[in-house]
Parts: sequence; C-alpha cells; structure tokens
Amino acid sequence: MATTVTLSFRDPRIELAHGAGGKATRRLIEGLFLPLLANPVLLELADAALLHVGESRLALTTDAFVVKPLRFPGGSIAELAVFGTVNDLAVAGARPLALSAAFILEAGIGSDLLQAEVEAMARAAAEAGVTVVTGDTKVVEHGSADGIYIATTGLGLVDPRVSLGAGQVRPGDQILVSGPVGDHGVTILLARGDLDLEADLESDTRPITPLVQAVIEAAAPGLRWMRDPTRGGVASALNELARDCGHGIVLFEEAIPIREAVRGACEILGLDPLHVASEGQFLAVVAPDYAEAALAALHATPGGEGAALIGEVRPEPARTVLALTAYGGSRVVDMLVGDPLPRIC
Amino acid sequence: MATTVTLSFRDPRIELAHGAGGKATRRLIEGLFLPLLANPVLLELADAALLHVGESRLALTTDAFVVKPLRFPGGSIAELAVFGTVNDLAVAGARPLALSAAFILEAGIGSDLLQAEVEAMARAAAEAGVTVVTGDTKVVEHGSADGIYIATTGLGLVDPRVSLGAGQVRPGDQILVSGPVGDHGVTILLARGDLDLEADLESDTRPITPLVQAVIEAAAPGLRWMRDPTRGGVASALNELARDCGHGIVLFEEAIPIREAVRGACEILGLDPLHVASEGQFLAVVAPDYAEAALAALHATPGGEGAALIGEVRPEPARTVLALTAYGGSRVVDMLVGDPLPRIC
Repeated sequence: MATTVTLSFRDPRIELAHGAGGKATRRLIEGLFLPLLANPVLLELADAALLHVGESRLALTTDAFVVKPLRFPGGSIAELAVFGTVNDLAVAGARPLALSAAFILEAGIGSDLLQAEVEAMARAAAEAGVTVVTGDTKVVEHGSADGIYIATTGLGLVDPRVSLGAGQVRPGDQILVSGPVGDHGVTILLARGDLDLEADLESDTRPITPLVQAVIEAAAPGLRWMRDPTRGGVASALNELARDCGHGIVLFEEAIPIREAVRGACEILGLDPLHVASEGQFLAVVAPDYAEAALAALHATPGGEGAALIGEVRPEPARTVLALTAYGGSRVVDMLVGDPLPRIC
Repeated sequence: MATTVTLSFRDPRIELAHGAGGKATRRLIEGLFLPLLANPVLLELADAALLHVGESRLALTTDAFVVKPLRFPGGSIAELAVFGTVNDLAVAGARPLALSAAFILEAGIGSDLLQAEVEAMARAAAEAGVTVVTGDTKVVEHGSADGIYIATTGLGLVDPRVSLGAGQVRPGDQILVSGPVGDHGVTILLARGDLDLEADLESDTRPITPLVQAVIEAAAPGLRWMRDPTRGGVASALNELARDCGHGIVLFEEAIPIREAVRGACEILGLDPLHVASEGQFLAVVAPDYAEAALAALHATPGGEGAALIGEVRPEPARTVLALTAYGGSRVVDMLVGDPLPRIC
C-alpha cells in the first residue's frame, strides 16, 4: 500500500537507477506513476493486481525485460520473461492461466537469435505449465534498441485459500526464503565480462510455482505475504514490506542462504548480497504456528532443499529492516541506492 | 486461423518490414512464432486471445508501441498504447476490465516528457473507461532505446451475445467501416518532417468501444467478425480475413471513406491508402439482414457519422480481396509488402 499519492517526483531526468528496483525506482513509481494513474488496485502496489471477475479472483502482472547480455549462464531473456511473470503470479498466490508476450526487436539481428529466444520461451512456458496465447512484434531501427526486449503479461487464478498482503503481517510472524539469494544478479554481472572475475555460478531463473504451491498446501491459513526478491534484492523487498506493514523486520544474518561464489563476488565488488537479484526464489511471511510446516514443505519439494527461516516480524524497530549478526551486533539493511546492476532483468 | 504450423521462416535477419504488419510480419509470425509457441488459442491468431474462466469469456491482448515521433498531431505514444489495446479488446467483442503497462525508458530523457506521457495515459484510460492496474518500468542506457517504448496488455470481458471469427463469415455478408481510413499513418509520416508535405490532418486515435457497442446492440446475432485496420491497413486486415474464411472480399472502391488530405498525401508518396494504418476505426462483417441496422447504429453514435458500407463477401475470387472501381474495372488489393511506414504505432 503506498503512503503517498502526491505528484512528488522532482528528479530532472530519468537515469538507470530509476529502473534498478531500489530507492530511485520507488520514488519514480510513487511520485509520478501512482499519483497520475491513481486507482485502488494500482495503489496496492503488489507484484500483481487482484481483479474480481464473476466468482473468480484473478491476478494480472506485467514486466519488461531488457537484460544484458541476452544469454547468460543458466538462462536467457525469453526464459526470464516467462519465469519472471509466472513468479509474480505465484507470489500473488495464483496459478498461471495465460501469458502474453510483446517483442521489440532491433533491425539487423539474426533470425537465428530470435528463433533461439522463441524456442527458449516455448520451453520455459511448458516447464511453467502455461501457454503464450497472444503477442505482438515491433521492429525498430538498428541502434534504437539493444537486440531484443520483451514485455510479458501473466493472467492467473488466485488460490481461494490464500489472502495475502502487507496488511496481514503481524509481529511474531516468521520469514522464510526458498533458497540461496543473489545468484542471478551476480551471474549477469560476471557474464558481461567487464570484470576480471569468474565464478562457477548460474542464474537461478526457474518457475517457483511448485514451491509456492507446496507452501500453500502446508500453510495456507497462516500465509501472510510473499514476494520474489528480484531487482533490489531481499533488502528492497523486505524494506517495502516493513514500510507497508508498519512493523520491524529482523533478519538472522547467518541464516540467510548465500552461495560462497555470490558472497565472494559481492565482497570484491562492494555489493551487499541482500541487494542482488534472484530470479528463482521467494520470501514468505508465515504465522508462527505454520512456519515449521511451511519450511518442511519447501524442504520436501524438489528445488526447495536450500530453504531457510531467516527472520521474524517484531514490533520494533518499526518500518525498518535490521540484520542481527552472529556476534550479537546488528545493522540496518536499507533499500538499494543507485544502480550498481543495470539491466539485470 | 493459421494455415501452417511448420517452422518456415528463412529470412536471415530481422528487418523493419517484419514489424510493419504486412507480408513480412505474417511470414515471421506464422513461420516462427506460431510453430514454436503452438497452442490452440494462439493459433486462432486473433487480435485478442479468448479464455474461458469460470462462467466468463475473457479476452487478453497485448501490443508494443514504438511510434516515432512520440507526440504527433492528435495524440502521443501513451494515448496510442491505451486506445490500441482497448480497441483490440473491442473488436474481440470485449469491454475492458483492466490494463497493464510496461515502460522501457531511455536514460537521459527529461522527466517532464515521461510525466506528460503518464498524464496522457491516465486521460486516455479515463476516456476509455478502464484503469491501469499494474505496470513495470525498466531503464536502458542512452542510445539503447528511442525515448519511450510502452507495452500494454488488456483484459476484457467478452459480450455473451457475440460469437466472432473468420469461420463465421459467409458469402453475402456485408462489410462496414466505422469512418475514414488512413488518418493515423499519414499523420505520423508527415509529423516526422522528412517529407516536404503538410496537411491539415490529425491521428484518429480514439477508443472505438462506444461504436462497437452500438453495433453489438443493433446487430449482435448477425455480427461475424471485427478488426481494427492498424498496421498494414484495411488491405492487410481484409486479406487475412479472405485467407482465413476462404471466401472472396469485394470492395466498392468509391464507397471507402478516405479524407482528401490522406488521398493526396498517398498519391504523392506512392502509397495505397488501403495499406495505411488507422487507430480509431474498425471493420465489421455483418450478415445481410443486419447490415442496415448496424450501419444506422454507427451513424447514430457520436464519432460514427462517417461509417460506410464498403464491400461484401462473395464466393469468388476465393481468398482474395478485389476492389471494384467506379468505372466497372477491378483490381486485386494485396497485403502490404515492405515497410514504407516504419514505427507507425
């Protein structure tokens, strides 16, 4: 839920940081898009909009993909475009009904490149159990785009058992993550080859639907909120939650699963792994009585072996994310500022 | 309905013509996208996909907008993005329930430009009676896009009284158009300023929902097929219909409403006005018993004063569009070939 609907965006021009998912993005969305397009559904600012049609609750979500490079270890732009949108539906508690895909192509690209991406899209859709039912293709002059951009929209049917939202979150609730975070963001950074760094690492892009489904089956009555920590990472997702629910989020830093390769690369690059995007993980806030069942369900589902309980909701510090270290210290985990990771998805 | 699902696209690279809505676009869609993403809904190749959810028939449609220039007489990219998608729903017989919008922004554009477009989007959505319920914003480096690209997706509820499709079309059916064609395409060409031509002309971008609604009220049982003649114009839309229904389409050339400014510009530029995009008109095929009522309903609706009966469906020449001239001659009206009108929407 947004706290403001006043036109307050004062940055004179659009910069890469406005697309990075951190503070600048938030400023643009809340200071410009929301006040101008204001309506109750948009104001919820969830990853997906909730619509009531007949007896059904539908979720609608859209994402543009401009990842660079187009292909990277573990995936490619079209795969990301399918899974990213399917995952936004999943964290809204919805199973995908249909996808649409709009392509913006740069004149001069090889048809083999496009074919490979449409093939990847088809494979990804099959893996996610959804079909691309409609689409559009535009071509712009050579130099007016960077190969291929894709915007996908997903329509999903919300599970009748769930009722999600920051407003449902209570002190005492437990915070789970489905697996190690930051793989995607670091993979993209390394794949660009600008850095003199290598790591045995792949993007984690995948459909999280089976994992979300397992949590719903095990803990639907206690499931409060879900989010996939893409642009801006775990830190930005949880800061938005802290602000929107009004409570404090306390993370047990040592409990957060992060691969050694991700941790090492982040140290060298001066990044906080909590700011780095995942594309195949999600955060879930679960009532205390259901946390154990939800975690067990994740562990029992293929791809959820690395799930962990990483924190809890407390009354204080209100509207803040705090990480407790192993040595009894603590640090405030802020949203991403600036854009160390342009065009990550 | 596509006639082929074989991977047959052999063009070595993507050119502007592949985005122009004519033959090359058709080759790309049917030779590459369809075979790879094949599923029954996509294979219908309608402007919107039809989905059954509970008791409701929903329409889902998506479009990317890359129009150049961003602002032009009579409209701008964001207005086009709203109306274009709302109109694709309308010709599927659907009223819009919700829109999503994904923005791809070029770093360095002024915030005032973006603000003006988001304001235009809000005004257009209000005019079309719909809200933008979810969105996404990505930013790419300066030089990796041309200002602003927008992809919109529309979800609509199909009127239970209509059953549309090329398969419904029968010889004897009448062909109506809602008003003069080609205004948008010629306006964009002139707005670029590359040509030493001026005309007192505006884009016709507008929501056609009220006009479509009037036709549905007056002639639902006899309404067979609708399409908005955007990229590729009336000629491409009707050629697709001729091919998909298997019958011949005969146009009465003198009856097709075309403004003098459009006709004049097309003559100078060597364009067939039937290949030029409209953004606020639609074609309707109506059973003979309902044609008069449908035309009267259009004439009685504000904005439909220029509607006309422009042709009919005949058994021959099968799968072909033929224009009969005032002097008793005839010419075959083919699909657009090449791309005389890049980035028209």
